[in-house]
Amino acid sequence: MSASPLILISNDDGITAPGIRTLVKVMKELGEVVVVAPNSPQSGMGHAITVGDTLRLEEVDIFDDVKAYECSGTPADCVKMAKHYVLKDRQPDLIVSGINHGSNTSISVLYSGTMSAALEGAIEGMPAIGFSLCDYSWGADFSHTEKWIKIIAEQALSKGISKGVALNVNIPTKQNEEIKGIKICRQARAKWEENFDERNDPFGRRYFWMAGNFVNFDKGEDNDEWAIANNYVSIVPCQYDLTAHHTITELNEEWEF
Amino acid sequence: MSASPLILISNDDGITAPGIRTLVKVMKELGEVVVVAPNSPQSGMGHAITVGDTLRLEEVDIFDDVKAYECSGTPADCVKMAKHYVLKDRQPDLIVSGINHGSNTSISVLYSGTMSAALEGAIEGMPAIGFSLCDYSWGADFSHTEKWIKIIAEQALSKGISKGVALNVNIPTKQNEEIKGIKICRQARAKWEENFDERNDPFGRRYFWMAGNFVNFDKGEDNDEWAIANNYVSIVPCQYDLTAHHTITELNEEWEF
Repeated sequence: MSASPLILISNDDGITAPGIRTLVKVMKELGEVVVVAPNSPQSGMGHAITVGDTLRLEEVDIFDDVKAYECSGTPADCVKMAKHYVLKDRQPDLIVSGINHGSNTSISVLYSGTMSAALEGAIEGMPAIGFSLCDYSWGADFSHTEKWIKIIAEQALSKGISKGVALNVNIPTKQNEEIKGIKICRQARAKWEENFDERNDPFGRRYFWMAGNFVNFDKGEDNDEWAIANNYVSIVPCQYDLTAHHTITELNEEWEF
Repeated sequence: MSASPLILISNDDGITAPGIRTLVKVMKELGEVVVVAPNSPQSGMGHAITVGDTLRLEEVDIFDDVKAYECSGTPADCVKMAKHYVLKDRQPDLIVSGINHGSNTSISVLYSGTMSAALEGAIEGMPAIGFSLCDYSWGADFSHTEKWIKIIAEQALSKGISKGVALNVNIPTKQNEEIKGIKICRQARAKWEENFDERNDPFGRRYFWMAGNFVNFDKGEDNDEWAIANNYVSIVPCQYDLTAHHTITELNEEWEF
């Protein structure tokens, strides 16, 4: 870690979202901050990138004493532009993404633009963390998250994060009760069960709203859903090597081709 | 496996792409086919889903004797709509996605809409396979892929695929030389290194095209890049549990909080 570390910030709720302001505030205490974030909300964008279309990038003056750029692309695009265009030869000491308005525990990590920015940072060889608050409201209170974000970012800066890994941090919503601490977790086994609300537009054509219920199948106490339900901050180390290594032997033994 | 298995097909190049027609042709030999695929190209959409916007779904008659629907959403949306709206109580025996026009080896799996449809199938408890041809051209010759797709789909139907796992199958482009066989692989360690081509629009405003070079760091011979380069069909079993389980102990031991 350099004397004043370079910290890149992105998110998926867009550069004007309240959550990113808390992240900027805390990171300014730890180093030099550069923000490259989407110019519009990008929730649910997963690891999408812009293919076959153009990108815009504009410098904006919306954070005190912080270089900031808004990008027309996805969170993953933002990190790619930050690394290869905005910062060029300067490698950030840390990339943080968020604070997401809403939980990214369990299976939601797959759909999360917040975590795709963090994983993109990990691909680029930076220690990377995605932060989410388990409260979807735009006016959510982020004040209690500052302490935990600072602790985790300081550890990442001083100890590093294993190669190929980004941390998925979820923080319980503000309650009367104090947060109990931090738990290192695995991703809970759960999924979204969708339903489709069918309607007709003013022209008589059918359209749908996709809605879903979160279904938790996991009985363990070592996962992120359990941690959040029990008022702990959860940290799941996530990797972008999707290989299910444990099944390679099985496929080699049992499949015939 | 039932007497005539139910096979769900999706893709990310859109329902009119040539690649999906080969998949429909082969799957019709194996069972009853239902297609739910995007109504427009969705390359690079990763695991994006439609949040805060509406979806359209229309039945279309473009494949002989096959129920087919085009959806305005992403590949992941298509599988969700297929499962929870189109098929409702009928659980497919297999979901196949593709055939993608272009390689989805190595890190490209993260950005791939083809593989997100397959992984969404795995989340829904179906044996799931994404097929890609390592040839980006729209007019690519898919004829040599039929044999391999049939072998792999038959194995998946008869032997199943481990829970939580979808297969990422890449097939070499047609060459004079015969494909040597199938290799079960891990995801190669590689990444895209982006560059940004800066231009001005007719109104004098700056915009960018993101382009990239694929950089392969992997010296192993057990990965998908090696297999394709050596004229094998590669199969990487992929999981949606992103937890880097090997780092949990390290974080618990070394981090202080």
